[in-house]
Amino acid sequence: EIPFGPVCKVPFNPNCSMILNVSQFCYPGRENFIHLCNPHLEKMKEDILYHFALGTGTHDFPALFGDVKFVCVGGSPSRMKAFITYIAEELGLGSPGCDYPNICAGTDRYAMYKVGPVLSVSHGMGIPSISIMLHELIKLLYHAKCSNITIIRIGTSGGIGLEPGSVVITRQSVDATFKPQFEQVILGKTVIRSTNLDEQLAKELMQCSKEINQFNTVIGNTMCTLDFYEGQGRLDGAICLYNEEEKLQYLKEAYDSGVRNIEMESSVFAAMCNLSGVKAAVVCVTLLNRLEGDQISSSHDVLVEYQQRPQKLVGYFIKKSLGKV
Amino acid sequence: EIPFGPVCKVPFNPNCSMILNVSQFCYPGRENFIHLCNPHLEKMKEDILYHFALGTGTHDFPALFGDVKFVCVGGSPSRMKAFITYIAEELGLGSPGCDYPNICAGTDRYAMYKVGPVLSVSHGMGIPSISIMLHELIKLLYHAKCSNITIIRIGTSGGIGLEPGSVVITRQSVDATFKPQFEQVILGKTVIRSTNLDEQLAKELMQCSKEINQFNTVIGNTMCTLDFYEGQGRLDGAICLYNEEEKLQYLKEAYDSGVRNIEMESSVFAAMCNLSGVKAAVVCVTLLNRLEGDQISSSHDVLVEYQQRPQKLVGYFIKKSLGKV
Repeated sequence: EIPFGPVCKVPFNPNCSMILNVSQFCYPGRENFIHLCNPHLEKMKEDILYHFALGTGTHDFPALFGDVKFVCVGGSPSRMKAFITYIAEELGLGSPGCDYPNICAGTDRYAMYKVGPVLSVSHGMGIPSISIMLHELIKLLYHAKCSNITIIRIGTSGGIGLEPGSVVITRQSVDATFKPQFEQVILGKTVIRSTNLDEQLAKELMQCSKEINQFNTVIGNTMCTLDFYEGQGRLDGAICLYNEEEKLQYLKEAYDSGVRNIEMESSVFAAMCNLSGVKAAVVCVTLLNRLEGDQISSSHDVLVEYQQRPQKLVGYFIKKSLGKV
Repeated sequence: EIPFGPVCKVPFNPNCSMILNVSQFCYPGRENFIHLCNPHLEKMKEDILYHFALGTGTHDFPALFGDVKFVCVGGSPSRMKAFITYIAEELGLGSPGCDYPNICAGTDRYAMYKVGPVLSVSHGMGIPSISIMLHELIKLLYHAKCSNITIIRIGTSGGIGLEPGSVVITRQSVDATFKPQFEQVILGKTVIRSTNLDEQLAKELMQCSKEINQFNTVIGNTMCTLDFYEGQGRLDGAICLYNEEEKLQYLKEAYDSGVRNIEMESSVFAAMCNLSGVKAAVVCVTLLNRLEGDQISSSHDVLVEYQQRPQKLVGYFIKKSLGKV
């Protein structure tokens, strides 16, 4: 009758009912399992995760993914491959020079790698791109009967008032008007969802950063925008119809509201993890200080080292969680 | 004083002033050149197109790209590589088995290929992803002093009321409430932009489809959404809080308003090409009929053949434009 995954009626995911008042629709999982907010899936004989080129009819999800506990996601496929290589060595599960196959080799939309309890998935750039990936990832984890999942986005961002290379652990993801919400149009109607992230997880990550003590890390709000140029007040896009003073005023207002960095995926990431009852965090390095400029002009080597910082922090957190520190 | 590209004061791009009332800001190009709506760029010594890993300080844009006349863009990097191979053979500019280097090899954000007057660029999935690419593409064409540019998006989509495999040439790109507009937040304020496309170009493409006579092609409206699952009324995402009846009602309303397919990039594509004075069209194949279902379950070979249809149509159009038919 219910072919996929573990399902029971309590505890109910409070985020579903509070925000959407949809108690009749949600299928909450057992505590620490994925909460599936879609009653239609149970009627499907097969589920094709098109953008992963995976399907329940062709792949044994519990066998392939049942042991996953940590999912790390980031925009760039090559960065997510570098992360799996790094974490494998850190956890003593890989050998130097070992190559990890791309589980989504049947498509070029996303790349996915796995070692032990860690899954590493790319999501491209922007809310729509990460949203497609998260729909399919959450279904994948559900079909695989995974439990006690932690998802962390390790990304890049523009900083506000921070030395470049600083790492921001997101307290709240806010929109371009500094509100902690994600607005989405469903069947032509606007729906607002909460962008809360796990406070305890953010504190644990901050503690990890103190322990490794290699780079500046802060907890702050993250502004999530739909555009990199005009949407983030840059002066260097193909279109720009405001002046530098207006730009700086906007960025200073963002800073005063608690925003410390700007990226393009955190709001829908927080909203979807919330609804699915998954612990989530966002850890992004800042590639520049937007109060000083718009162009990312640091050398390639400097940028590569910056991008390793969230990986180091989250790698240490995973090791510590597994009792390997 | 004005280091980049050809600039003069007439004819003024009517879309800039009509929709944004920003005549004091826009730097319209000479007729048929790129209209640059950003006065700040002329003050920059160097322009780094970060997501292309190209820059005016390191690359000679006029030498590399000055002869470009047709730019084809699409979501998937491998599809855009397949297109450059196809068009090279069609134009008699390539030899079988010839490999085309990725001009953006320094990054994995986008892929770019060129043969003769044709540039082929991937843009990932969703409005934010294509928007970053278009900002940098429009600046690239401007810096390269290109003229008489036609940009065509060749993509995939979900059809409404069409046999799968049908090709839709977009008349108007509409939002999820069926309005022909693109809404964007700039410095925290909402700005509405027109999503008009070139009517004459759409007609010429339709004529090409009649001449090749290989698949069903229609001119219709294209709905551009920010999400693939809930945003397009699918029942098979990780979250779905409506029923099948509500879904079908929404899709039928879309059909009645003139929508024939749904994708995720056309609105910002139309808006930005409009503002930049570039002739643009959207040609997407439909992978399924959304009135019949949500999952893309056709065989790999069928889907590959479907995805070649926009390439064939646009390939024929380019050949005809160059007098090679």
